[in-house]
Amino acid sequence: MPAPRDTNLTVQEFNRIADARLPFAALMGLRAESIGFDGAVMRAVHRDDFLRPGGSIAGPIMMGLADAAFYAAILGNIGAVELAVTTNFSMHFLRKPPPGDILARARLLKLGKRLAVCEATLCSEALGDEQPVAHATGTYSIPQDAKKVS
Amino acid sequence: MPAPRDTNLTVQEFNRIADARLPFAALMGLRAESIGFDGAVMRAVHRDDFLRPGGSIAGPIMMGLADAAFYAAILGNIGAVELAVTTNFSMHFLRKPPPGDILARARLLKLGKRLAVCEATLCSEALGDEQPVAHATGTYSIPQDAKKVS
Amino acid sequence: MPAPRDTNLTVQEFNRIADARLPFAALMGLRAESIGFDGAVMRAVHRDDFLRPGGSIAGPIMMGLADAAFYAAILGNIGAVELAVTTNFSMHFLRKPPPGDILARARLLKLGKRLAVCEATLCSEALGDEQPVAHATGTYSIPQDAKKVS
Amino acid sequence: MPAPRDTNLTVQEFNRIADARLPFAALMGLRAESIGFDGAVMRAVHRDDFLRPGGSIAGPIMMGLADAAFYAAILGNIGAVELAVTTNFSMHFLRKPPPGDILARARLLKLGKRLAVCEATLCSEALGDEQPVAHATGTYSIPQDAKKVS
Repeated sequence: MPAPRDTNLTVQEFNRIADARLPFAALMGLRAESIGFDGAVMRAVHRDDFLRPGGSIAGPIMMGLADAAFYAAILGNIGAVELAVTTNFSMHFLRKPPPGDILARARLLKLGKRLAVCEATLCSEALGDEQPVAHATGTYSIPQDAKKVS
Repeated sequence: MPAPRDTNLTVQEFNRIADARLPFAALMGLRAESIGFDGAVMRAVHRDDFLRPGGSIAGPIMMGLADAAFYAAILGNIGAVELAVTTNFSMHFLRKPPPGDILARARLLKLGKRLAVCEATLCSEALGDEQPVAHATGTYSIPQDAKKVS
Repeated sequence: MPAPRDTNLTVQEFNRIADARLPFAALMGLRAESIGFDGAVMRAVHRDDFLRPGGSIAGPIMMGLADAAFYAAILGNIGAVELAVTTNFSMHFLRKPPPGDILARARLLKLGKRLAVCEATLCSEALGDEQPVAHATGTYSIPQDAKKVS
Repeated sequence: MPAPRDTNLTVQEFNRIADARLPFAALMGLRAESIGFDGAVMRAVHRDDFLRPGGSIAGPIMMGLADAAFYAAILGNIGAVELAVTTNFSMHFLRKPPPGDILARARLLKLGKRLAVCEATLCSEALGDEQPVAHATGTYSIPQDAKKVS
């Protein structure tokens, strides 16, 4: 009897999907750190070309990171339904992140049949968890004829 | 006597800033098409690595595009104040854009001393202007000791 | 042969629904001005108890107004599907509206089978249309077994 | 020597401001439950005229509740700066709240000199805390010449 899984998509499975099917995620240095039924943690591995004037990490990198964290959190629950798509996304930028990795911790606020709603707090490794750099919310639409990737 | 300018930052000046100071904009294929006092148009030049499962353009590319269009619309009015930063950003995804360039048309809803608010409609060249693919709003904070880049 | 209608819900029909079924709309002084396939205009009739410190119209009155304008714009297209519900709502406050009526002009950005996305610009009669006081976007979920109210 | 306060505005002080200066808050049944440096809890006391078609609490009541909770959370930190104003507000609606009181628990994500950013989770007393009915984020602008009400 197989042990009960603590997620419907592992970090390895997610990163395999990302490698094969989300090439822009590599452009943004994104990779999954952990995925569970309660949420997901995604990392943007720093590169100097993510910096904007003033020397802080550019907003679009943080938005791509949070969006990917939502995707991982949802797929961790419903499995590899690749065609789940963002219907809206919103971010508040709280502090300018200095050069360094950014971590997004996403959690599901609601997982319905048709819509999933998530929030994420983003922290900079340089500033620590006490000083979040951004907060995001977003909604994903889950296709009704969802076919999982085998 | 110099002719009156129709903007405080030209497309050429913006693209020069982008080349020198926004390296992630190149990652996302972004370049300014037009900048005026009433707004700005920005283009994401298509690359196949912008596609996500289902074959449509990934959301983070569209978010980066709209954010850059807001930046151009604001700098078109206040000049090259590079340290203007996004304080919040929100996007609704309306239709899945097929492969092809995306255009963001941004306009200023408000230009205050401290905050500027913008909206943008994003269209796919493949679908045409009648079928927008996304709509974005955002707020930028304008530094009070704003020094323009010469 | 009946003349073609220019909407699937008239102003009179909407206001009848509001009177019977949206009692909070009366608390907020809301009434429909016009409804068409391309959008709807809703008015918040001024009362002094809508004012907040500083003497401007309180934000929640403007949020209720825009949300009702979205509802009218959607029902104008799909008919009296009362159970359509907001799934998200966002507003940018642009200027402080002085005492006086506020008008919200809503238009549909997308009308899908399951989701409708709207935007609205809010103007104060005291300031005029050139100085909008707020901008809103929102998404409504349309029930699949939608039964119209006869 | 006075004991250190655990807030710069008490529940009693906030409710006194609301009674005198936020008459729409009474329309929406709002009253502060607790205020501290870490956030605030606000309640919308149920009335049947808050219900919308389907028998659930109308969205604008929840938006007004969250906006007031943000205001209380901020004034709890900076004192009675009545002229602090919302610059943007966003809400995700997660579940339809049945008739009954709604509680908004707000916390500060950032308190800067010019801007404060908050989030709130809204729960229905009928459904319990495990099933939040809405999630909100918002930004307030803090006037630089802020004069506190004595």
